[in-house]
Amino acid sequence: MSEILLRLSATIEARRSASPETSWTAKLLSQGPGKTAEKFGEEAIEAIIEAVRGDRERLTAEAADVLYHLLVMLAACNVPLDDVLRELASREGLSGIDEKAARD
Amino acid sequence: MSEILLRLSATIEARRSASPETSWTAKLLSQGPGKTAEKFGEEAIEAIIEAVRGDRERLTAEAADVLYHLLVMLAACNVPLDDVLRELASREGLSGIDEKAARD
Amino acid sequence: MSEILLRLSATIEARRSASPETSWTAKLLSQGPGKTAEKFGEEAIEAIIEAVRGDRERLTAEAADVLYHLLVMLAACNVPLDDVLRELASREGLSGIDEKAARD
Amino acid sequence: MSEILLRLSATIEARRSASPETSWTAKLLSQGPGKTAEKFGEEAIEAIIEAVRGDRERLTAEAADVLYHLLVMLAACNVPLDDVLRELASREGLSGIDEKAARD
Repeated sequence: MSEILLRLSATIEARRSASPETSWTAKLLSQGPGKTAEKFGEEAIEAIIEAVRGDRERLTAEAADVLYHLLVMLAACNVPLDDVLRELASREGLSGIDEKAARD
Repeated sequence: MSEILLRLSATIEARRSASPETSWTAKLLSQGPGKTAEKFGEEAIEAIIEAVRGDRERLTAEAADVLYHLLVMLAACNVPLDDVLRELASREGLSGIDEKAARD
Repeated sequence: MSEILLRLSATIEARRSASPETSWTAKLLSQGPGKTAEKFGEEAIEAIIEAVRGDRERLTAEAADVLYHLLVMLAACNVPLDDVLRELASREGLSGIDEKAARD
Repeated sequence: MSEILLRLSATIEARRSASPETSWTAKLLSQGPGKTAEKFGEEAIEAIIEAVRGDRERLTAEAADVLYHLLVMLAACNVPLDDVLRELASREGLSGIDEKAARD
């Protein structure tokens, strides 16, 4: 199931050259990093609201939106998802408190 | 590489019962969904700022933070990552514009 | 010029009982605190993006949007603007560092 | 009471040249627009969370934080508060729906 993110990331890349009139992803990417960041931010806010409400079903859907728009924002900025996952992996093995210290 | 998210999600679950004094994740979870949502929101803002700045290296690190804190928020709300990935997968195959219509 | 906020706050209160079909403010309020918080969050994100971009003209407009949507969110939660301004005033006279300490 | 915002704005301006070691505001301003935007974003998230929770007392305090950090962000970007209030005033008299249309 986890490979869905890589597949989605590849789909987003493939749509980069599609027409903004037929592809929502192409339309977002054509508007530049700022617009993709704005959309990502909107979805993040919606996920936060559902988390505080404790609505698990809506949080599931909003978290999916967050992931999709995070991938679009990364694509708009030419940051490969692989680099982000590698960064996460490099932090593994650090204990929680050590990890926080490493990030600060 | 994509299985790192599932591994990280399992690690977060495992730390749920750890001491908040030795585990950063346990400390976050012990403060409840609202606190985890706040931390997720802070990381989302930082990622947005780096995206607009166009700083790819810092965006990579911030995006990793976003993913970690999204997983912690999901754990605090008892939403399995698997459900979120399944939701993303269920949208696959929809064209971009159809997908947007389906989400609206 | 500063009384514009109080006037706007009064206008928002007055529109509370208007029809959601003719008043944008009434429509927002009728959807509850969560929806007004979501709109406030969207405007906050847009203001952040313009601040990072350094676009002063657009930041001016976005900051006005932030203030309007902050007032709507306060109205939806029955928090009088006066209470918020009183809170700000009560912090006056504290030096910057003291003020931060007082808020922490 | 409404003049508190103008007074606070003037205080922030006055602290621009203070030492970052003795003034929290000077410290924020010395770190540039991005840092002030990040702090503003954090406070916006906290206000959103309290609004959804319906905690009026904490929302009052968070809304005050939002206003303070909005003013610091505006100062960091050299946008006068007066311009923002003038923008708000220029929208007055528009009906709710017209106003929304004017902003779109």
